[in-house]
Amino acid sequence: MIKDKLSIGLIGLGNRGVALLNGVILLEDDIIIEAVCDIYEDRIQNSAESIREKTGIKPFCTFDYREVLQMDNIDAVIISADWSEHVAIACAAMEAGKIVGCEVGGAYSVNDCWKLVSTYEATGVPIMMLENCCYGRNELMLYNMVKQGVFGEVVHCEGGYHHDLRAEVCEGRENRHYRLNNYLHRNCENYPTHELGPIAKILNINRGNRFLTVSSVASKASGLREFIIANKGADYDLASARFAQGDVVTTTIRCSNGETILLILDTTLPRAYSRGLQIHGTKATYLEDNNSIFIDGVHNSFDFTWNKQWDNVEQYREQYEHPIWREYLKDGVHGDHDGIDYLVLRAFFDSIKYNRKIPIDVYDMASWMCITILSEESISLAGQPLAVPDFTNGRWIKPGDTEDWEFGLNSIYDAVKGTVL
Amino acid sequence: MIKDKLSIGLIGLGNRGVALLNGVILLEDDIIIEAVCDIYEDRIQNSAESIREKTGIKPFCTFDYREVLQMDNIDAVIISADWSEHVAIACAAMEAGKIVGCEVGGAYSVNDCWKLVSTYEATGVPIMMLENCCYGRNELMLYNMVKQGVFGEVVHCEGGYHHDLRAEVCEGRENRHYRLNNYLHRNCENYPTHELGPIAKILNINRGNRFLTVSSVASKASGLREFIIANKGADYDLASARFAQGDVVTTTIRCSNGETILLILDTTLPRAYSRGLQIHGTKATYLEDNNSIFIDGVHNSFDFTWNKQWDNVEQYREQYEHPIWREYLKDGVHGDHDGIDYLVLRAFFDSIKYNRKIPIDVYDMASWMCITILSEESISLAGQPLAVPDFTNGRWIKPGDTEDWEFGLNSIYDAVKGTVL
Repeated sequence: MIKDKLSIGLIGLGNRGVALLNGVILLEDDIIIEAVCDIYEDRIQNSAESIREKTGIKPFCTFDYREVLQMDNIDAVIISADWSEHVAIACAAMEAGKIVGCEVGGAYSVNDCWKLVSTYEATGVPIMMLENCCYGRNELMLYNMVKQGVFGEVVHCEGGYHHDLRAEVCEGRENRHYRLNNYLHRNCENYPTHELGPIAKILNINRGNRFLTVSSVASKASGLREFIIANKGADYDLASARFAQGDVVTTTIRCSNGETILLILDTTLPRAYSRGLQIHGTKATYLEDNNSIFIDGVHNSFDFTWNKQWDNVEQYREQYEHPIWREYLKDGVHGDHDGIDYLVLRAFFDSIKYNRKIPIDVYDMASWMCITILSEESISLAGQPLAVPDFTNGRWIKPGDTEDWEFGLNSIYDAVKGTVL
Repeated sequence: MIKDKLSIGLIGLGNRGVALLNGVILLEDDIIIEAVCDIYEDRIQNSAESIREKTGIKPFCTFDYREVLQMDNIDAVIISADWSEHVAIACAAMEAGKIVGCEVGGAYSVNDCWKLVSTYEATGVPIMMLENCCYGRNELMLYNMVKQGVFGEVVHCEGGYHHDLRAEVCEGRENRHYRLNNYLHRNCENYPTHELGPIAKILNINRGNRFLTVSSVASKASGLREFIIANKGADYDLASARFAQGDVVTTTIRCSNGETILLILDTTLPRAYSRGLQIHGTKATYLEDNNSIFIDGVHNSFDFTWNKQWDNVEQYREQYEHPIWREYLKDGVHGDHDGIDYLVLRAFFDSIKYNRKIPIDVYDMASWMCITILSEESISLAGQPLAVPDFTNGRWIKPGDTEDWEFGLNSIYDAVKGTVL
């Protein structure tokens, strides 16, 4: 399929849907938004109006995503609905022949992850997880450094979703956000992919490596209750609610190639935002939280003046900036989330238009999403390690290449350079 | 026992023993070193000579610690032998009526931990683990802040032993260090107490709270091999050795009061030293690695300019410095490891001289040390959570008080002020 413009349907128009909408509109030379869908009328009207104002085209509006999937002129859909609906909508879309760009979120059953894979394999319709953090400037620079050997052999990575979401969660009724019900009822690593995606790419997961086991423990849940009492008062109904979601969830993953991964979910305590990326290799260590790279032979482990080795990442920027970001910065960074929404959408649409391999494919999606439900089960079993399914059914052991990922990046690179092939 | 001077035997005179010796000599108004013991003659001679030079007294010298334990004039021994001998020597000392100050290290069996407890309970002879990091300036300031409520309810703590020991480990034959054989044969959280001790004090472990389960995973072991080949050459015999110890060991502990603890062992990769302390509470977060405290209402979670909330711990120093350190700094910080060796020895000797409760007692020691063997078992079982024994046999649930710990601190405080009671 090489079309001049792709026709797109947007399913799910909450905060994230609107952010994606704004990202999509930046790509208006390449796409037309033909349909918008949500379960709330105001969201539909606002989005449709915004599209009409910015592009002159009024999209088809519906409460029922199945109507979008039935439209002959739709090439692809972008799903940013409630986490619990992602898989059902994605599978229905693939079955209807619509290419899927799916927002991030965790799975509610391992079976759902298998369903994604089997639907993809049965239909052959491409699906991409829109994990914007895989396109982060630091994440791509560090990916570049790892591939160039700066870290030697990488043995351990860490990441976290450290984001104070107390207001968003406890106002889930007012803002119609599904996080509230998740936090009331579930206790799990509910949002692993922002940090796990970039780590999985660094460790070549599903391309010569795979996740073997997951185990998780959760702290008690105290942050939301205290926040609600302080901000809403002790008489507010949720002040006496029992939140199932522990404030800090610690998850460890063992990989077949011997690496370990540590993930921290930390969304209901006061703190500044971080994705807490750490890369530990035989030649270097990277710590996001103090913005430092320690390189064997350059820095000295026995210099206990830690400050000397702090906050030095910018010293490596010029040498190791990823080619995509070099071009992107020249061209001007667009859109939300420091420009990464634009990049992930660019990668998605270019993959479709030029019929290239999907850079974050169904096997990535299934193996990243399943961490959520396996963590939920592991927490309920006091940290019992659980096996991660091999969603590739053995294809991961074929000579490892990361071509699809590099290709997805090159696609953007070409696009950013204005030299799309 | 209130004696003018305590008579001390030093058992184990390696690097750590010599450091403790220097710390002890600083306390010469209070103690006399009557005996020194090691399995190597040169160490004995060097230590004896050093003592003679600095104090004028030549200690009794022996290869056999049992000879030290038989000396009528010895009040207490300090054990800094090979980790694997700590428990055997400590129990023999208690049975001989000698008060024990024991260097840190992990246990090789749960049974050994029980043996420590039962020997203590049978003999009534005090034993203290000499965990110097419990007396660290930052650790005590943060303990102070937690007790004053700055963190609200603490729900999660992290710590690590991030220390590049590659040279020490691989030169274990030349420097006669027992780490080499441990790293060749064992895969575990081999050195948990520097970070776990201060965290256990913050969380009131064994005083209203206890460790419930431990689970650990280990990365592959690549750091030492690469270091040896680069520094000793591919022909060096250890270049082909298979090290059992994974480069990064990730351990999670669940507490009865609902907190989680995360420990990282990270000793065979290039990096700067850190104990990686983190405290996560409902009102504040502390991160050692960027030297930051984030306080709800003072700092803003939605300010994504992370640098604004970085490296701000000194702003809280004046208000929250622990009283001990206030006095200690006035008096002048003494000895090795930023002065913490002096403080831990001061606490030990004062507890003995004034017959006070031991601040880091046999129950602390057993429960901290057992993390090592439980982590070894858990790693061998792919991260299986294992139950931590209740070494107090239920006494931990009696109304929690931290009196012994505060008391141990006050003792130092009094001593530092020159107003020993």
